[in-house]
Amino acid sequence: MIVVLGKQASSDQIDAVAARIRAEGLETRMLYGVEKTVIAVIGRRPPELLEQIERMPGVDSAMPVGAPYKLAAHHAPQSRTVINVGSVSIGDGSVTVMAGPCTVESREQLVMAAEHVAAHGAHILRGGAFKPRSSPYSFQGLGREGLCLLEEAKVLTGLPIITEVLDPRQVEEVAKYADILQIGTRNAQNYALLTEVGQIEKPVMLKRGMGNTIDEWIMCAEYILAAGNPNVMLCERGIRTFETASRFTLDLNAIPLLQQATHLPIIVDPSQGTGKWNLVEAMTLAAIAAGADGVLIEVHPSPDTALIDGAQSLSPDNFTALMQKLTPMAKALGRSIQEPTTVL
Amino acid sequence: MIVVLGKQASSDQIDAVAARIRAEGLETRMLYGVEKTVIAVIGRRPPELLEQIERMPGVDSAMPVGAPYKLAAHHAPQSRTVINVGSVSIGDGSVTVMAGPCTVESREQLVMAAEHVAAHGAHILRGGAFKPRSSPYSFQGLGREGLCLLEEAKVLTGLPIITEVLDPRQVEEVAKYADILQIGTRNAQNYALLTEVGQIEKPVMLKRGMGNTIDEWIMCAEYILAAGNPNVMLCERGIRTFETASRFTLDLNAIPLLQQATHLPIIVDPSQGTGKWNLVEAMTLAAIAAGADGVLIEVHPSPDTALIDGAQSLSPDNFTALMQKLTPMAKALGRSIQEPTTVL
Amino acid sequence: MIVVLGKQASSDQIDAVAARIRAEGLETRMLYGVEKTVIAVIGRRPPELLEQIERMPGVDSAMPVGAPYKLAAHHAPQSRTVINVGSVSIGDGSVTVMAGPCTVESREQLVMAAEHVAAHGAHILRGGAFKPRSSPYSFQGLGREGLCLLEEAKVLTGLPIITEVLDPRQVEEVAKYADILQIGTRNAQNYALLTEVGQIEKPVMLKRGMGNTIDEWIMCAEYILAAGNPNVMLCERGIRTFETASRFTLDLNAIPLLQQATHLPIIVDPSQGTGKWNLVEAMTLAAIAAGADGVLIEVHPSPDTALIDGAQSLSPDNFTALMQKLTPMAKALGRSIQEPTTVL
Amino acid sequence: MIVVLGKQASSDQIDAVAARIRAEGLETRMLYGVEKTVIAVIGRRPPELLEQIERMPGVDSAMPVGAPYKLAAHHAPQSRTVINVGSVSIGDGSVTVMAGPCTVESREQLVMAAEHVAAHGAHILRGGAFKPRSSPYSFQGLGREGLCLLEEAKVLTGLPIITEVLDPRQVEEVAKYADILQIGTRNAQNYALLTEVGQIEKPVMLKRGMGNTIDEWIMCAEYILAAGNPNVMLCERGIRTFETASRFTLDLNAIPLLQQATHLPIIVDPSQGTGKWNLVEAMTLAAIAAGADGVLIEVHPSPDTALIDGAQSLSPDNFTALMQKLTPMAKALGRSIQEPTTVL
Repeated sequence: MIVVLGKQASSDQIDAVAARIRAEGLETRMLYGVEKTVIAVIGRRPPELLEQIERMPGVDSAMPVGAPYKLAAHHAPQSRTVINVGSVSIGDGSVTVMAGPCTVESREQLVMAAEHVAAHGAHILRGGAFKPRSSPYSFQGLGREGLCLLEEAKVLTGLPIITEVLDPRQVEEVAKYADILQIGTRNAQNYALLTEVGQIEKPVMLKRGMGNTIDEWIMCAEYILAAGNPNVMLCERGIRTFETASRFTLDLNAIPLLQQATHLPIIVDPSQGTGKWNLVEAMTLAAIAAGADGVLIEVHPSPDTALIDGAQSLSPDNFTALMQKLTPMAKALGRSIQEPTTVL
Repeated sequence: MIVVLGKQASSDQIDAVAARIRAEGLETRMLYGVEKTVIAVIGRRPPELLEQIERMPGVDSAMPVGAPYKLAAHHAPQSRTVINVGSVSIGDGSVTVMAGPCTVESREQLVMAAEHVAAHGAHILRGGAFKPRSSPYSFQGLGREGLCLLEEAKVLTGLPIITEVLDPRQVEEVAKYADILQIGTRNAQNYALLTEVGQIEKPVMLKRGMGNTIDEWIMCAEYILAAGNPNVMLCERGIRTFETASRFTLDLNAIPLLQQATHLPIIVDPSQGTGKWNLVEAMTLAAIAAGADGVLIEVHPSPDTALIDGAQSLSPDNFTALMQKLTPMAKALGRSIQEPTTVL
Repeated sequence: MIVVLGKQASSDQIDAVAARIRAEGLETRMLYGVEKTVIAVIGRRPPELLEQIERMPGVDSAMPVGAPYKLAAHHAPQSRTVINVGSVSIGDGSVTVMAGPCTVESREQLVMAAEHVAAHGAHILRGGAFKPRSSPYSFQGLGREGLCLLEEAKVLTGLPIITEVLDPRQVEEVAKYADILQIGTRNAQNYALLTEVGQIEKPVMLKRGMGNTIDEWIMCAEYILAAGNPNVMLCERGIRTFETASRFTLDLNAIPLLQQATHLPIIVDPSQGTGKWNLVEAMTLAAIAAGADGVLIEVHPSPDTALIDGAQSLSPDNFTALMQKLTPMAKALGRSIQEPTTVL
Repeated sequence: MIVVLGKQASSDQIDAVAARIRAEGLETRMLYGVEKTVIAVIGRRPPELLEQIERMPGVDSAMPVGAPYKLAAHHAPQSRTVINVGSVSIGDGSVTVMAGPCTVESREQLVMAAEHVAAHGAHILRGGAFKPRSSPYSFQGLGREGLCLLEEAKVLTGLPIITEVLDPRQVEEVAKYADILQIGTRNAQNYALLTEVGQIEKPVMLKRGMGNTIDEWIMCAEYILAAGNPNVMLCERGIRTFETASRFTLDLNAIPLLQQATHLPIIVDPSQGTGKWNLVEAMTLAAIAAGADGVLIEVHPSPDTALIDGAQSLSPDNFTALMQKLTPMAKALGRSIQEPTTVL
């Protein structure tokens, strides 16, 4: 921590700040500049200390040195986390494609979507059974019935399943069906839920809170890691900005920033992140070109009758077309892209 | 709903869109303009229909007409919600001051803060027992012990209590102690929690999600109202913007906007909203001048040793000074400000 | 400047950074911490040095200590800038009201607005002759003819004039007519224009760029001050955020922040800042309660036929009603509010 | 235009709105719904009418139908603008690389950068002679001397030149040297400057204002087009968001959005857009994968001694490495990438 005191700080005030820091068992180094006095603090400070010091008379500002997360931090280039789900390895340098409907609506809809994406190169099947909807009057998902349909689709296609969990009381049940549990953007800082999924053995995909910085997002992952679950992947899904032409602003800058800050795999959701199906192909290609470990894509057999988020779902044909561009591009970048996991 | 189709839309496409709308039992009115075709839709559409239509070939955009919330909507100027908590009436035109420490740290700290704010005009005591912290390694509050201390402070001062609830499994217990339950910004879209507090009889103060628009925020209130709890107040607490000089951007524009959109009382939190104690006085005065029904202010007997958020807490003296400005200003604006509820 | 180097920095890299800093004639203090090495730099660094250092191998970050502006900085509480315009003193603790139409449309419109605002307490007349419009096909203002009409209104009402200048080639001419020159949000970082208005003798009101932080905004003021014009006032007019219910988010937090950072007077524009006339009263009262030195309000004799920005203009009656609330509120806060400057 | 009136609107108010619209020579279609009355307006309305109507009693909102720009609008897939600069065709489906130093600092620095980028695949040389700096005390560029050096580098390498213009009074002179004139983010809404560059014959690259929506940005391009210059390309360079890990948030979503809205070529600036050299490679690849027509990259022979923006400049070696990835990726996507234009 670096503490800056202004010209107007008296020597009594400076001494009081230094004493307060040393009372925590930390070392101080005093630097008397032209206009400012700087105290450099050496040692591991308690998290609260920074803002306590910031509040003391004479202090202009107190700045942290170093990241606030430990388990999520990137310590060495060679030690990236790889998450194995069935035969899929997420984060090993290959490209992972997760695809399927936003919401499980019916057996027919799910199976059609699942078989199509499996046949055209997806590695993991997505589908929502419990849906967080901005209106209490909207369809909230099929719930447990949706989980059973996902299990059936998994048997049919061989694709592992990713699905969302909304409530700490549902974690145990959802974990019985899901291969990966998803935490959505609205629950990104729901610490009760994060702690709960930190105590199960299934991998977790943590979406970015739409109003969260990258540092805050990594701290949310730290909650899961600290609770004991090492298999966390991060999913960029768009942030809130003043631009309204896309529903959110998908922040691809997060990909190289996360690669430098953390060892966790990075997934991108261009469907939720843009809210418009006709941006999905461009942003999927861009995400992989920028180095994402995988993408999460909404595919619906009939997007214009989808109960939820049809506007951002690809039709099966559009998904096929996307995979035909993605595969050679990934290879040109030296990225392997796993062959379809099943023969139908 | 208004649907706009572009020049390039074929008459078959236009017919298909109209047929899709009529299949929901809705009426359509066709308008053929110079460059665009517009379909006006009459009747209550299912929430999903808008984005389904938006996805159909030839459609440029589909725009809702009217707000998506019903129970929260403002229907008549005279019918504003007033929430009675003990002898305090929130939303009746008077100014309500909620004050106290960010976090309950000890009996001594809480009682000192409570007695001071009670003596200087606060009507409700705030204090956190369960704290949502961005780091899993930070102090998370005293939990149940904190609730007991709050109860004791209530007995001592006569002030009703507001405190936060984080987990749907804690709602029942927190409701035993609290006079008002607070939902924090990180849980503003935690629908499981909103539904749970919608089923109790205590009033709820819902903070704005830091990344949520005003419309989304009202929809969160609608979740609580729709679950059966009519006593909801809204609390503006700052949004995420590019400005970093304040921790958040306290959005006072929300006050008149909410007054026009909804009948629910409006509280402002200048402590969390700015993150800096030396902005709190100015923003409290501004909030009341703009028409807020009340404010939520952090007061700590010794801000520079506070375990959490000391940087944004007023000292007792600063709170007193603020009340000495607030009271005459409120009166000059024709607002009554209740006298201190207790004699100590 | 504080330079932080990470664990991975070699001692050669640390030495190279220190040598680079000393080559500028600056002193360094080395601090070897548990995980980081910190170099504190003492002395006035060239502005470029920070990012040059940031780019060197081994460096995690380089942080400035102290503000980048000099002339605009606040050095002592008693030394605030007061700008005298005719008999009006802006920044002396009193409340200054600038009001009038967004755009000068005709003699009749301007005179009606000017006489009304003069009679009800405005101190300065606003009106645009050169208008920056987002569409090249929109009405761009009356230009020189508008300046002449403003002069006429000034003679009739006695109110000094504030009007916008858009082009460095127009500064000389506009300065002949205007008592205060306004730089709009779109030109807030138009340094050619800032330098030009820095060379005249008339006061300048600098609006905040809609995408600019407070620090950047003060740096824009520094351009004018550095060019030789000490009479600069700052005008908060709303920033770009994700909220769309108001046209911009008027950032009142800027008022106390600016008071702490700079000695320049602070004006707030609730008309442009919200884009909605029915938010103007609430936000004007809030701005003054928060400590602004003045407000800039759009008043149009007939807002629903205004050529520009009618949606954000007050009618004369609404302006009168606002002044009837503002005056007692200002007095209750101990602020003097100058009596109407003219008898009509 | 669609006008929505609420339940509370009287029939007199509805009639008044309709009459006001018809007074402009426009047709109205009335739609009486369950809760709202809608007036659809047919014909080309004057730009001012929308907000005039929005201000009328009883009106809830007025929404435009169709884009406000005409010349910039995309009318047919086959009619994209291609801008020829020397032997380079920008916007023809190929990938254009513009590279060079942020600022021209010296003959040696410029020539080293120019020769390196020319030898490794750049098509156009960038370099700033007039620099918009946020501090008036920072180096403002070499001015005319910088233009002469750029001319010399062009002769040596054969690369056409792009350079920024800041002041309408400089346009004529800069246009003598530059092959493409650049308008920077701070001047994106400097309409005097836009109009001036609209009257010359050289192509213009218009950067996005850091606080501007895509629609506003296209309107800025419309200013140049409307003044008579058809050769406008758009450059995404990052917007202001709450995220501070990158200097700006480079908004790649803008690429497919612009392709749908306009026929103008699209360039991306990952150097300015992220502010960090170690994000440039990832974001350059992503920009081209998303469909950008070209990129603008800062390359400095010695980034850690650069006078301006060294932190975001690639070293020559890093540029070479980037081109070695970009070229095969572009080809895998079916994009041609022009061979180096010169043999050195």
